[in-house]
Amino acid sequence: MSAKTTLGIVAPKIRFREPQIEMAHGAGGKASRRLVEGLFAPILFGDSSSPLGDSAHLEINGARMAVTTDSFVVKPLQFPGGSIGELAINGTVNDLAVSGAVPQAIVVTLILESGLRTEILQAEIEAMARAAQAARVRIAGGDTKVVEHGKADGMYITTTGLGAPLAGIEIDPRSVRAGDKVLLSGPIGDHGITILLARGELDMEGDLRSDTRAVYPLVNAVLQAAGPGVRWMRDPTRGGVATSLNELARDCGLGVILFEDSVPVHDAVRGACELLGLDPLHIANEGQFLAVVAPELADAALKALQEAPGGEEARLIGEIREQPAGSVLVTTLYGGSRIVDMLVGDPLPRIC
Amino acid sequence: MSAKTTLGIVAPKIRFREPQIEMAHGAGGKASRRLVEGLFAPILFGDSSSPLGDSAHLEINGARMAVTTDSFVVKPLQFPGGSIGELAINGTVNDLAVSGAVPQAIVVTLILESGLRTEILQAEIEAMARAAQAARVRIAGGDTKVVEHGKADGMYITTTGLGAPLAGIEIDPRSVRAGDKVLLSGPIGDHGITILLARGELDMEGDLRSDTRAVYPLVNAVLQAAGPGVRWMRDPTRGGVATSLNELARDCGLGVILFEDSVPVHDAVRGACELLGLDPLHIANEGQFLAVVAPELADAALKALQEAPGGEEARLIGEIREQPAGSVLVTTLYGGSRIVDMLVGDPLPRIC
Repeated sequence: MSAKTTLGIVAPKIRFREPQIEMAHGAGGKASRRLVEGLFAPILFGDSSSPLGDSAHLEINGARMAVTTDSFVVKPLQFPGGSIGELAINGTVNDLAVSGAVPQAIVVTLILESGLRTEILQAEIEAMARAAQAARVRIAGGDTKVVEHGKADGMYITTTGLGAPLAGIEIDPRSVRAGDKVLLSGPIGDHGITILLARGELDMEGDLRSDTRAVYPLVNAVLQAAGPGVRWMRDPTRGGVATSLNELARDCGLGVILFEDSVPVHDAVRGACELLGLDPLHIANEGQFLAVVAPELADAALKALQEAPGGEEARLIGEIREQPAGSVLVTTLYGGSRIVDMLVGDPLPRIC
Repeated sequence: MSAKTTLGIVAPKIRFREPQIEMAHGAGGKASRRLVEGLFAPILFGDSSSPLGDSAHLEINGARMAVTTDSFVVKPLQFPGGSIGELAINGTVNDLAVSGAVPQAIVVTLILESGLRTEILQAEIEAMARAAQAARVRIAGGDTKVVEHGKADGMYITTTGLGAPLAGIEIDPRSVRAGDKVLLSGPIGDHGITILLARGELDMEGDLRSDTRAVYPLVNAVLQAAGPGVRWMRDPTRGGVATSLNELARDCGLGVILFEDSVPVHDAVRGACELLGLDPLHIANEGQFLAVVAPELADAALKALQEAPGGEEARLIGEIREQPAGSVLVTTLYGGSRIVDMLVGDPLPRIC
């Protein structure tokens, strides 16, 4: 998940001064970043100035490995195109994949609500098993807690993934250079808008499905084509593409130029966003990723991505420039441009 | 945590037929085992017949490593002797330690309730940092989600621990033999009864503190003294000593004889249990462990344990015999004896 542990190397130190936790602190945008950088990081990580990505890479028993962890609290538990169990596997294997690691094993904890129907639980256990099999990861163990009725919306799932880092691949925002190209694996916003519609709180219907899937095969296509030319990757989940690219801009100290007309967006997502006053660039995705690739290898990487199953709608959506340093500038075919910030507030709570 | 993923090799296959989840399914006793063995294991692990312990040991990138995961939902968040943050670190490093691995790194997720006061959150982040430092593990990353007010009792914490398995140490119930001795690191029931009293629902007071601590130094003392003579270890958390030993009896197919008068129990725990009709053997511990050691090395292991700081109250509390196969028989000095089962029901919900 983007934002979660990313420690900035550009921005000045901040302190968390808010008196209490609000929904926005879990939205993956600016408030989440304030909480992580202003409260968690100073206590847990000291003065570390390394940007941490989607996964931590560390050494255990003499071997390098990647680890990532996420809790899933999506509401409702089931939605068109997926469910919490599938999301909990895919979200974690994707965090490993975009860190340049081959997903290998997952451990799972369940916090269940007393009174949860067994068939609902069983459906999610089966969804996890199917997703793990599709992603070729082994579920290696787990734990279950039960809380009183009303205390967990059915269930919360936490998954931790372990992976083997690919040799020669170094995913690090500090290796990004002006001139690098930004690739996107497919259309954005499907997951966030699907969840919003599935809640039935809006008088809106749409033929949309969550894009949840394991992206490792697509990531692998890019890595095979561009290898060490792949500087950085991320799955733009909470906070969307705009938040992930803002984090990149901050962490590399360069500007990200985004060609808005090149960003694929389904009509149903665009329509819902217009009605709600949201920007598709801020809407969460669960089956897409961004890749920054050295310019001489970008065409080959894009071609490999588009030729891989499920990558047909991949596009080159932007490039890295010296300016505006630390920011994301969105440009349109007609010459318009605007700075787009990280997600502020939480217009779509609990989408993963 | 005991019970969580232990797949029996003795018991016949069971199916989970209960229509909904109850608090007892999270209590670590019989109901938890039915849920894991009857529903989770067949779907997630297939027909595996290997008993899984507190941690899974697997190979990533050519190196063996240990991984374990647990969610913590203890209520209240703070209690005499500890708090949820400290528990979340200690519980996980202890699961690694009793599997014969040196704890090395932890990742953490927080599910926070909207409206949670920042000072309460900060206190738990600090408690985690202190506990991690004391246990010499690095907190390598994390994730935060926020749910609506009323949905998470302040916070739930999930920790996943990674460790390096010690060479030459094989913790496996199948290696236990008749004649082996059972050691216990210290007095039982302090944690469970402390939580119960801290809730203030009972008209009882007691000068008790949770025993939460990292047991690795004590485990290491045993391993240094008895090495490969250490057959099996476990931290008797949910379900207590009786549940852990019943799992051992089932998994090794032998009988566990427990010398009741040798089991250290503080007076306050004994008194509360008598009033409540509970058996101290079923009460949760968070800073103790059981070890089964080959008979010729048991004295040396016990001596090493008692000489290590915090191990002074360790005792030899039982032995393994051929009969009663698959069960735990409690004997007293006066010649009485009784079979003690796993925990049934959930007399002490949400103690970790």
